[in-house]
Amino acid sequence: MASWFRRQRPRVEAPTLTPRDTAAAALKVDLGELAPAPDVFLGHCAALHLVFIEQLTTAMTNAPRVADKDALARVSGVVLTRYLALSTEIERMQLDRSDVMQPHLEGVEEFERRTRGGEWHEQVASAHVTIGFLTDFWVQLAAGLPGDLRGRVTEALTLGDLQNPVHRVIERAIATNPKLSSRLALWCRRLVGDTMLQARSALVMHDDPLRDEEQIEPVFTELISEHTRRMDRLGLTA
Amino acid sequence: MASWFRRQRPRVEAPTLTPRDTAAAALKVDLGELAPAPDVFLGHCAALHLVFIEQLTTAMTNAPRVADKDALARVSGVVLTRYLALSTEIERMQLDRSDVMQPHLEGVEEFERRTRGGEWHEQVASAHVTIGFLTDFWVQLAAGLPGDLRGRVTEALTLGDLQNPVHRVIERAIATNPKLSSRLALWCRRLVGDTMLQARSALVMHDDPLRDEEQIEPVFTELISEHTRRMDRLGLTA
Repeated sequence: MASWFRRQRPRVEAPTLTPRDTAAAALKVDLGELAPAPDVFLGHCAALHLVFIEQLTTAMTNAPRVADKDALARVSGVVLTRYLALSTEIERMQLDRSDVMQPHLEGVEEFERRTRGGEWHEQVASAHVTIGFLTDFWVQLAAGLPGDLRGRVTEALTLGDLQNPVHRVIERAIATNPKLSSRLALWCRRLVGDTMLQARSALVMHDDPLRDEEQIEPVFTELISEHTRRMDRLGLTA
Repeated sequence: MASWFRRQRPRVEAPTLTPRDTAAAALKVDLGELAPAPDVFLGHCAALHLVFIEQLTTAMTNAPRVADKDALARVSGVVLTRYLALSTEIERMQLDRSDVMQPHLEGVEEFERRTRGGEWHEQVASAHVTIGFLTDFWVQLAAGLPGDLRGRVTEALTLGDLQNPVHRVIERAIATNPKLSSRLALWCRRLVGDTMLQARSALVMHDDPLRDEEQIEPVFTELISEHTRRMDRLGLTA
């Protein structure tokens, strides 16, 4: 796969600090090297979770059926649980929540505006695609956190079940109105670029851009594959 | 106090089933007589809680500061907890959530639209006034539920702390911009009529409208007093 962000740059073999004997090992270690310091990690990730809550509740507000509203309210509660767990880590470091989150607010809100759908099907698809992709991304990035924090943050980011209930809401919508499929497939494809840019904005680049790209590329390839599997489950072309 | 809904109707002394020796006793028993059947009670009240979540999250989405977003996200989680507890009661009666809630959706969403503020200060004030008033109201109305359900619903409706955090958000906003006070006072006053109509829509009226009014009046007087205390605490004229 070509680099997702610098398609024109020629690819070269750059030295890496980590052995590449398995894809999984390479992935975790490589992205971890680009992780920001814990306070920046937690501030950005927590601010992003507030946006996830906003995305889900926007879809919930506009959904016409109680069953969908109910599902989206519960899922928004799952995100809140993750947010509260991240908040706890911020407090454990004796940092002020607002101080660490505020610098990231403009970026994540701009991302939310760019990916907000016009009607509720698009809104719930936006939540599904962006939360799915970015959660996978931040779990990978957590590999760069020190010691115990890494485990606790990974746990925070994966608390509860979010993907399956949102999947079922979209599945029901498509079953009710099969014509939605092609529109939602295009919509979801449109979201991937902004979502990848939002992910990338969390990375701390080093002096050697070529080496950075070498580290980023396999991770984004895997994240895109996961996105494709998410779309496949809905019968949507990624 | 004059009747809040039929101000033109002459007041007469109508017989009541309950002793009126204390205001509190009269209140609880009287409104309980106008309570709907448990399935209608739970369906309406749960649908209303979805609207509360929407109100709080709208304010959260538009609040510019992380501290306010954080507070509103947590409070929205409190409402979700109450909603889930009401849902549990619906399931305990072996009823379908969607079936009992859907008939009330149009009414509560129309109420939400009528009371939605144009910017985030108004939105959070709307949430404060309407959730405060209607929670007090539904707690009173729960007196009409049978046996154990009454206690469990009253507990569900009062889980967690909602009023104080929302109060503090508005207090901070006014402290930052004292000019807000007079505008918010007017805005909150404007909300009371729609909020009382929403409350009243839950009551089951009997054959004798005069007697119904006699029963409703003292309860609404008390709810209005509570509303006035809520405004006083913010330094706003009710």
